[in-house]
Amino acid sequence: MNGMMKCVIKAAPGPGNLELVERAIPQVGPNDVLVKVHSLAVCGTDVHIMHWNEFASTRMTPPTIIGHEFSGEVVECGALVKQIKIGDAVSAETHIVCNTCDVCHNGNAHVCPHTSVIGLSRDGALAEYISIPASNAVVFEKFASWEELSLMEPYVAAVHAATQFSVAGKTVAVIGCGPIGAMGVGIAKKCGASNVIAIEPVAERGKMALLMGADSLIDPIKEDVAKAVPAANGGNKIDVVLDFSGNVGAIASSLSYIKPEGKIAVLGLSDKKLSFQLDEFVYRGITLKGIAGRRMYQDWETGKGLLAGGLDLSHIITHKLPMSEFQEGLRLMEHGECCKCVLIP
Amino acid sequence: MNGMMKCVIKAAPGPGNLELVERAIPQVGPNDVLVKVHSLAVCGTDVHIMHWNEFASTRMTPPTIIGHEFSGEVVECGALVKQIKIGDAVSAETHIVCNTCDVCHNGNAHVCPHTSVIGLSRDGALAEYISIPASNAVVFEKFASWEELSLMEPYVAAVHAATQFSVAGKTVAVIGCGPIGAMGVGIAKKCGASNVIAIEPVAERGKMALLMGADSLIDPIKEDVAKAVPAANGGNKIDVVLDFSGNVGAIASSLSYIKPEGKIAVLGLSDKKLSFQLDEFVYRGITLKGIAGRRMYQDWETGKGLLAGGLDLSHIITHKLPMSEFQEGLRLMEHGECCKCVLIP
Amino acid sequence: MNGMMKCVIKAAPGPGNLELVERAIPQVGPNDVLVKVHSLAVCGTDVHIMHWNEFASTRMTPPTIIGHEFSGEVVECGALVKQIKIGDAVSAETHIVCNTCDVCHNGNAHVCPHTSVIGLSRDGALAEYISIPASNAVVFEKFASWEELSLMEPYVAAVHAATQFSVAGKTVAVIGCGPIGAMGVGIAKKCGASNVIAIEPVAERGKMALLMGADSLIDPIKEDVAKAVPAANGGNKIDVVLDFSGNVGAIASSLSYIKPEGKIAVLGLSDKKLSFQLDEFVYRGITLKGIAGRRMYQDWETGKGLLAGGLDLSHIITHKLPMSEFQEGLRLMEHGECCKCVLIP
Amino acid sequence: MNGMMKCVIKAAPGPGNLELVERAIPQVGPNDVLVKVHSLAVCGTDVHIMHWNEFASTRMTPPTIIGHEFSGEVVECGALVKQIKIGDAVSAETHIVCNTCDVCHNGNAHVCPHTSVIGLSRDGALAEYISIPASNAVVFEKFASWEELSLMEPYVAAVHAATQFSVAGKTVAVIGCGPIGAMGVGIAKKCGASNVIAIEPVAERGKMALLMGADSLIDPIKEDVAKAVPAANGGNKIDVVLDFSGNVGAIASSLSYIKPEGKIAVLGLSDKKLSFQLDEFVYRGITLKGIAGRRMYQDWETGKGLLAGGLDLSHIITHKLPMSEFQEGLRLMEHGECCKCVLIP
Repeated sequence: MNGMMKCVIKAAPGPGNLELVERAIPQVGPNDVLVKVHSLAVCGTDVHIMHWNEFASTRMTPPTIIGHEFSGEVVECGALVKQIKIGDAVSAETHIVCNTCDVCHNGNAHVCPHTSVIGLSRDGALAEYISIPASNAVVFEKFASWEELSLMEPYVAAVHAATQFSVAGKTVAVIGCGPIGAMGVGIAKKCGASNVIAIEPVAERGKMALLMGADSLIDPIKEDVAKAVPAANGGNKIDVVLDFSGNVGAIASSLSYIKPEGKIAVLGLSDKKLSFQLDEFVYRGITLKGIAGRRMYQDWETGKGLLAGGLDLSHIITHKLPMSEFQEGLRLMEHGECCKCVLIP
Repeated sequence: MNGMMKCVIKAAPGPGNLELVERAIPQVGPNDVLVKVHSLAVCGTDVHIMHWNEFASTRMTPPTIIGHEFSGEVVECGALVKQIKIGDAVSAETHIVCNTCDVCHNGNAHVCPHTSVIGLSRDGALAEYISIPASNAVVFEKFASWEELSLMEPYVAAVHAATQFSVAGKTVAVIGCGPIGAMGVGIAKKCGASNVIAIEPVAERGKMALLMGADSLIDPIKEDVAKAVPAANGGNKIDVVLDFSGNVGAIASSLSYIKPEGKIAVLGLSDKKLSFQLDEFVYRGITLKGIAGRRMYQDWETGKGLLAGGLDLSHIITHKLPMSEFQEGLRLMEHGECCKCVLIP
Repeated sequence: MNGMMKCVIKAAPGPGNLELVERAIPQVGPNDVLVKVHSLAVCGTDVHIMHWNEFASTRMTPPTIIGHEFSGEVVECGALVKQIKIGDAVSAETHIVCNTCDVCHNGNAHVCPHTSVIGLSRDGALAEYISIPASNAVVFEKFASWEELSLMEPYVAAVHAATQFSVAGKTVAVIGCGPIGAMGVGIAKKCGASNVIAIEPVAERGKMALLMGADSLIDPIKEDVAKAVPAANGGNKIDVVLDFSGNVGAIASSLSYIKPEGKIAVLGLSDKKLSFQLDEFVYRGITLKGIAGRRMYQDWETGKGLLAGGLDLSHIITHKLPMSEFQEGLRLMEHGECCKCVLIP
Repeated sequence: MNGMMKCVIKAAPGPGNLELVERAIPQVGPNDVLVKVHSLAVCGTDVHIMHWNEFASTRMTPPTIIGHEFSGEVVECGALVKQIKIGDAVSAETHIVCNTCDVCHNGNAHVCPHTSVIGLSRDGALAEYISIPASNAVVFEKFASWEELSLMEPYVAAVHAATQFSVAGKTVAVIGCGPIGAMGVGIAKKCGASNVIAIEPVAERGKMALLMGADSLIDPIKEDVAKAVPAANGGNKIDVVLDFSGNVGAIASSLSYIKPEGKIAVLGLSDKKLSFQLDEFVYRGITLKGIAGRRMYQDWETGKGLLAGGLDLSHIITHKLPMSEFQEGLRLMEHGECCKCVLIP
């Protein structure tokens, strides 16, 4: 498709430098599809790009279009694309992987060392159009709204974390109830967790966790989690911990309230060191698992199925703005004033 | 405890021969507990014992007290019992296993070849009291009622079947919606199945399946399941089949509507032969798994957790009678006029 | 690459009709690689194509080049190919899948319903050159010989079967010791099986099983397997059955000598019906699993690793002929006079 | 059995205080068996008891007979014991668990919070006789020697670690090649690991690792493991790390040479803190698993099977002394001058 489009770019290294500009609509290679973007959800990564912290500066080479959590409609297909049709409603896996190395071949494409990332190491979706490999487009035959469909990328990451260990009939603590954690609460309940205990100091986020189905809420600033978690579980330790905070202290403290052979899945990130006494970890047979991206594409299928089965994400979107107000969207996310804010190109 | 108690025995081989009699309260060995029975649920096995079919006649040596799905209160503990206390509310695992053979040692005690079975190869629970090994008593700190607690043995078998393969976000067909199948429907939904399709020709049982959460109901007499199941699933084949019918034709026909790499768990029993074309099974990578008893005791723990998380079994009990009317209870079960009937000693 | 090449085609429907002809070297699409074939192993499927049985006639539309178990060197790469280089030594996964449907997305591409198969539904490798999707080419940095490398496709299928259930420290019966079964024996031993019992009536195949490491050999014509298998296992039943025969009677009879919760993986094919009494299967908690193709590409990676760890397949190749003697190669396979026969273009 | 026996006790708190004394042969309860001890292997735990460090002083209440890795012959059975017979050759699981709590019920008896430990919290086996629960006695119908049979407890712990993640066809680093690590090397190779890289600074231990089958040996004092491990693996990172050292620095450094989605099993203990940067762990999807005790009794069965399949532990025993020279045995272990030293009562 020829023509120009509006998009938001990181124009140059350094803090700020985000600009709404016009660019040519991207070309479509033989294996690609062109998507007209209908909704884009602002992610913490977009804030990192604005701040230009080490995470962003080592991964992005401006100028680059930002944004990666999106939904839209396919308007053009490359010559070799068979499986996607014009008019399909899609969300996208943001990891573009090699599919060839031993990591990919072992079923672990989500951590392929040759990954490029939409909206980070290549142009993103805060734009009227984006061209992506057809194999990264995930078609949704049914979905609630374009806005909800733009949540799929972080939602499926939450599915990855919350289904890493079986939670059916198990007791679960969820550390950190921002948007992904709040979705994690909902997923764990939907999958049969008997008791989900949300741990979150920010009042608005705690409310969201309860809205998503948490059985109880603990403020870790005011309460001692080593006592409060068992107190919220009939005096017993718990089976599974899901961390969405990246708070290394909070993760380490979960060893105090998890059962022997307990399972800890950590999706939250931090450049700090996680430290814990080895004896305690080994004697009690604990498992600690890092959760990166989304298993491609099992977690997408599971996520679709949970939505089809009635899981409701509508509460997660608290703000909706036109693309032109992207600075406000980023500010809301930066200051934790929203759960999820979507931008409409 | 000394004294006499009322109980129902299979007095002699052959059809019928069930009698309400008085017997001495059983003795308690050093590893045993004596349970005052508060509720007993009638099982199809009890009907087999009444009919004295091959299943029953090769396993039971009359006179034997019948009944094995029960709940009650611990009133006496053997000298070496540490973990169970007088006053504990218990249900029981009915398989008394050796805990020593290679099968038990491999974590498969539920299929130990040296199993004796309460109410079949040893005295059962349709009695005022029963003595069982303390290790077979499962304590419930919370439970809805004695009647519901007496459903635990078949319920946990349903948990075994319904959690054999992950159903979170998956589509599931449940074949046969008698009491165990109906509970299987409820468990699959509680564990996040996106779409549960009940297959059941008996109208009352179909209603129960819908009450337990089935998304749709197919009458396999009136409809062609090969078409009706995909039609109830947006035109797509399904992920998981749970059989509670033992109907070999119905199980074989599930190959027509299950996806490649689909999973079939069969709890239903039959002395008939299951037959299917090998090519179809192998080419499509299907898994067929027999479900025997309850994993000891993981399924009990999961089952407890699902109840604690809100799974409601109250609809399952449709009839409640005094023990003296045991013949009526057996008749209701024999003719499928109840879902579950409980007898109160 | 322009020019002509020699190849063997199924020229027309019906028995026979195999011809050595000249054809244009195939074109290379943007995602493809051209491989100069160095060795091709004759497969039972090639015999089916010669016989033109139902399996072949419903899948192939002549004229088509036959052959699919091959090795060779990459001589040309399509414009979009990144991961494969000219000069790479490759074998190939013969299933070309869609990578997009729910089956593929669930990690089960090996049973994708949209699969096309090299040498069956599209041109094969009994030719001087073959063009295949780059994603189906598997690079081997180290390998014993071009001949051994041409065994990879059936070998990795044997890996799929033999690693489906853990065999480390377990007792295993292998039914059917043709080339894939013989490799299955070797794989099971390499993975730590404590006792591998080969069941095979053909003397030459039995010898091959022993050469590949089987601890004992049973002739099921002369011996009653229900007694002979436990007798070969210290009087005990066994843990795992791997079937490579497709003999439905032999598979059903394995229920007599497998332990409770035993695992049966079936790779062998048959258009006959497998029949067994349901009770026995369910009461004993048996698992029956169809093995189709090769998990893409986990089994390839595992297979590579086992070879790197010392697994020796050199005995499997018993005959080596020039491509021009393909009729003799097919005759050897048809009459079971070889283990594997390779043809050199 | 009445009479007196010789045994070694920790007579009183504090360093040393180990004495060879005479005591009454222990009584046999109804669920117990009396074992005539034929061989006892000295363990690091026995050295801790000698030193009276925090580990020992918080778990033992002298006077207590020490020693827990043993083999012997059953000479008396309690009244309720069915499965063990006089004359049986046994080794023993040293964890005596409750079999009743939720941890045990979930199949995790090896980390039961109510565990008592032979030779630590109750009398041990450095004695002519020991009385243990029959359910903790593991019968070996075949075994190489009483000395090798006395290695089973640590050997099965090594089985627990080395079979925690599948190693068939995978590359494995083993950190720490004392007796358990050396057995871990042998187990990993036996289970099909393609390449086992031993990491051990002590020359004698390194030699033992090579004797047990390690493909290469790295001295982490002299070499940079971040480079040396990939160098020993064809330039590639590895799949699985097994730690038997408890060296927190060595465990943390394994993140530098493990693949994405790599698996780390840690059996080694330390009261130090394990620290690593969270980002790196999460981004790369690593799994860290504590290995406590032995899965009861799956690991025992697997361990038996691997020995039956030819795994040879004979090199592990480097010293054999009479019980009266227990001080020398402890000294050898304390100074790392042996691999395993056995004492003969």
